[in-house]
Order: sequence, then C-alpha cells, then structure tokens
Amino acid sequence: MLYLIGLGLHDPSDVTVKGLQIIKTASRVFLEAYTSILGVGKDELEKFYGREVMLADRDLVEQNSDEILRDAIDNDIAFLVVGDPLGATTHSDLIVRAYEMGIKFEVIHNASIMNAVSCCGLQLYRFGETVSIPFWTEGWKPDSFIDKIELNLERGLHSLCLLDIKVKEQSIKNLMKGNKIFEPPRFMSVVQASSQLLEALQNRQIKGISPKTVCVGLARIGSPSQQLVVDTLENMSKVDLGKPLHSLVIVGEVHPLEQTMLNIVCKTETK
Amino acid sequence: MLYLIGLGLHDPSDVTVKGLQIIKTASRVFLEAYTSILGVGKDELEKFYGREVMLADRDLVEQNSDEILRDAIDNDIAFLVVGDPLGATTHSDLIVRAYEMGIKFEVIHNASIMNAVSCCGLQLYRFGETVSIPFWTEGWKPDSFIDKIELNLERGLHSLCLLDIKVKEQSIKNLMKGNKIFEPPRFMSVVQASSQLLEALQNRQIKGISPKTVCVGLARIGSPSQQLVVDTLENMSKVDLGKPLHSLVIVGEVHPLEQTMLNIVCKTETK
Repeated sequence: MLYLIGLGLHDPSDVTVKGLQIIKTASRVFLEAYTSILGVGKDELEKFYGREVMLADRDLVEQNSDEILRDAIDNDIAFLVVGDPLGATTHSDLIVRAYEMGIKFEVIHNASIMNAVSCCGLQLYRFGETVSIPFWTEGWKPDSFIDKIELNLERGLHSLCLLDIKVKEQSIKNLMKGNKIFEPPRFMSVVQASSQLLEALQNRQIKGISPKTVCVGLARIGSPSQQLVVDTLENMSKVDLGKPLHSLVIVGEVHPLEQTMLNIVCKTETK
Repeated sequence: MLYLIGLGLHDPSDVTVKGLQIIKTASRVFLEAYTSILGVGKDELEKFYGREVMLADRDLVEQNSDEILRDAIDNDIAFLVVGDPLGATTHSDLIVRAYEMGIKFEVIHNASIMNAVSCCGLQLYRFGETVSIPFWTEGWKPDSFIDKIELNLERGLHSLCLLDIKVKEQSIKNLMKGNKIFEPPRFMSVVQASSQLLEALQNRQIKGISPKTVCVGLARIGSPSQQLVVDTLENMSKVDLGKPLHSLVIVGEVHPLEQTMLNIVCKTETK
C-alpha cells in the first residue's frame, strides 16, 4: 500500500495521529522535499518519528518513482508531503504510476495553505480561483496571474497567491553541461510578489486593482512566529515578513465580520 | 488561552498530535456539534482522549459563549471543530468575543472538505468560488447558488457545493411556542442536491450547465467507506451514496491529468 500522508504546516507534531501510526510502522518512509518546506528539517522529523526518513527530490519522484513504489504491493510505503498530499500536481503522477503497477493507495489529509489561509480572518468560501506567482527572470515575465486576480475581483472575491519555490534547481549553464550542481533554494517573499504585481500593473491596466488595493501578507502560517499583515499593495512591497514560507492575498469585497477579524488578527506595519 | 482545534474529517485519530496534546491537558474541552459531524460520536472521542468532552450546540456558542470562555484568561480551553476550525462563520464570532474579553487564542489547523475535495482527482487550484446549497422548503427555494456555478463554469472552473446540514433545529411551530423540542438531524444527500439543481434549471436557463453536465458525488471523505462517483447531473440525482456527509462537485474544464485521476479514483455507477 502507498500512503500519501500530509504533514500539515509547520512542525513534526502537525501530523495527524493516524498519519504518525502509519509512519511508525511503514517499511520505508520518504519525505517529498521540493514543492514545499516545513519549519523543521529531516533530522527533527526523524527524531520525532524514531526512524529513518529518505529525502525524495524531484528527480526521484518524477523520473524514478518505481524506486519509491518498489515492493509496495506487499509492504506499506509512507510518502510524506508538506501540507495536504494532493495540493501539487506531481503527486497525481505518483498515484497514477502506483495504479498502473496494481498498488493500492490511501491519502491521509491534513491542513494546507489552501484552507489555513482562513487564519487571516477572510472567509474561505469568499475566495475565487487560486493564483500562482512565478519568479520572473530578466527575459521571462509571465503575468497571466493578474488576469485571474482581475476576474476574482470582478466578483468581489479574494485571491490566494501561492508564491514560487525553487529547490534543487540547476542553472541553465549547469543543466546544459549536465553538471549536477544545484542553486541555493529560493522562496518568493511577499515583497517580491508585490513588486512583480506592481510591475505587471505598470505594463497594462487591470480593472479593480491598483497600488492602493488592500492585501494580506502571510508568513510561516501555523508556526509560533506566524505573521499576518494587512496593507496596500504598494506598502506590501516594502514589508519584510522574515523567513519563508510566504503567501499573499489580494482582498476583494470585505464583509463586516471579515473586517472585524482582519482588525483582530492582522497588523498594519507601515502606517 | 482559547484553542480552536480542527478534528479533521472522520475518526478520532484524524486529530493532529499537537491538537491531541492540548486536548489532554486543557482545563475544559468543548465539541462544536452543529455545523458538521465526524464519523464517530462524543463517546468514542472521550474514549480516545481519555477525558470528558462537553457538547456545544448553536445556542451555547452563539448566545452563551461567555460560558465557554469562562476562566480562559488563566486556563486553557479546547474548542473542537470538525474539519478546520475556521471553515464556518460562527467561529469567527467566538474569536471576536475572546478578543473582547482579553483572551488569547490559537488555531490548530486540520484538513477540511475545502482542501480534501482534491481526493476526487480534480486539482484544487482549478476550483472557483465555493457554493452552499440549502434545503428547500415548499415556499422557500432560493437558487442563487446556480449563478455562482455558472460564473465558475464560464471560466472553466470546478465548483465545490457544500450541502446543507440541520442539527438541533426547531420546527417553526415549536420555535414560536418556545418549545425546546428539536427535529431529527438532517444532512443533504447528493441525490437531494442534484434534484434541487435540476429543478432550478427547469425554472431558468443557465449557460454551460444542463442535466448532462458532469459532476462528482462525494460521500464520507476520509473514512474507510469513502465513496466517489463521477456521472452526469441527471444520473447523480438517482445515485444513493449512503450515510452522510455528502458533497457535490460541478466539474468545469478537465485537464488530461485530472481526467486520468477521475478515471482512477471515481466510479461511474449508472452506466
């Protein structure tokens, strides 16, 4: 059996009791280590579980998944994913491969930023389509995310923006030379995301969104150092929220109870 | 301190390790028992936690929250919520009241249907605004949910429909007489939701949605008896998915990987 187990948002104790029981008894345990990060490393997880955990990078999951699934017809394999296991496309690939090999699978759900974003005081059912903001490079500045935000705002809906993560990526030079040398991990900050949004707005006008649009910056949700800031987009591009992971919400129409909650749970740093 | 603790989707072991630690040591433990249900009752939770749990009905949470929050400045109060604690509006009220009383609060997140719906094979970031479908009565048949579904479909997005729950409700007669007599709990089924949708479609034409529109019916997500069915809306109105809780997804544009996943995880019962 393949168990895809969500680890939740921050530390080892965010796993569910059910998930932990499976981790303790599985024959092998893999930690998916490239689409998100916990607030703790592999060592702390191993200490908490009392057993060895193997890191699964993109290569292993996407190119060599048969190695993960080896023996899984007769043994239990635990595949650990930060947040909920079905947030990222790539884990569908692993499920499809397991299915083709005749291996049963089960998903142990957990919190992910997709529902925990409600901690900022905005109601989940008032969010529209989720948006991904990729790291821009000198020659590659895709901005289709801004169209999705516009369509959400037209309906008064909030937009959760998931900010890009680059873990174990190769430079184009190293990729072409076949050098297995990896760049340091990068996690997009609220400052970077807001700056890219502001630059996109300079290039073309978008109805309903401007530098004065209200946003919420979220950092390290679910951790003791969680930070929530509400401010305009232009101020958000100057607010240092510290260590990753960050997310950004573009706020739509705010209901009175949402406003009360925003006032209670979010700070305004730049006023 | 007020701890709002998510219990996840089905059984006692779906709580997180962190949540369980707090439940074991809190001075009082309340279980919110009117916006959703687990697959198990209070007795099984008490057995699992090794301590007493008090049921909190709508009256207690909305009218007498000071009783829940009594002593919470100096003691830890655990308020347990099925799914994630911030899915339902009413718990914002409790947080606002705690804030007014100078009581600190912390949210222990967990999976909810809002992210666990991804188990059907559709990608979370391809969902639009979430829709609530209320029980219709003879004289009261609001159908604004269908406009939201239409707007989601226009953008090719899926719609998660949350189906109505009536727990500890009074009949209008008993309410007017002030009799504290409650109706049996009711949970909307996929059959009822699909039938109401079909009736709404007979009353007015909606672009992009018809009896042939593809839907996913979900029952008891996260439990061993979880059921997922993909079929047309008109067939869905005849599919008995058994015990609650049910949810319904109106499917938008389907990407190839989503189609593969739908084929793997969902059954088609009526073909």
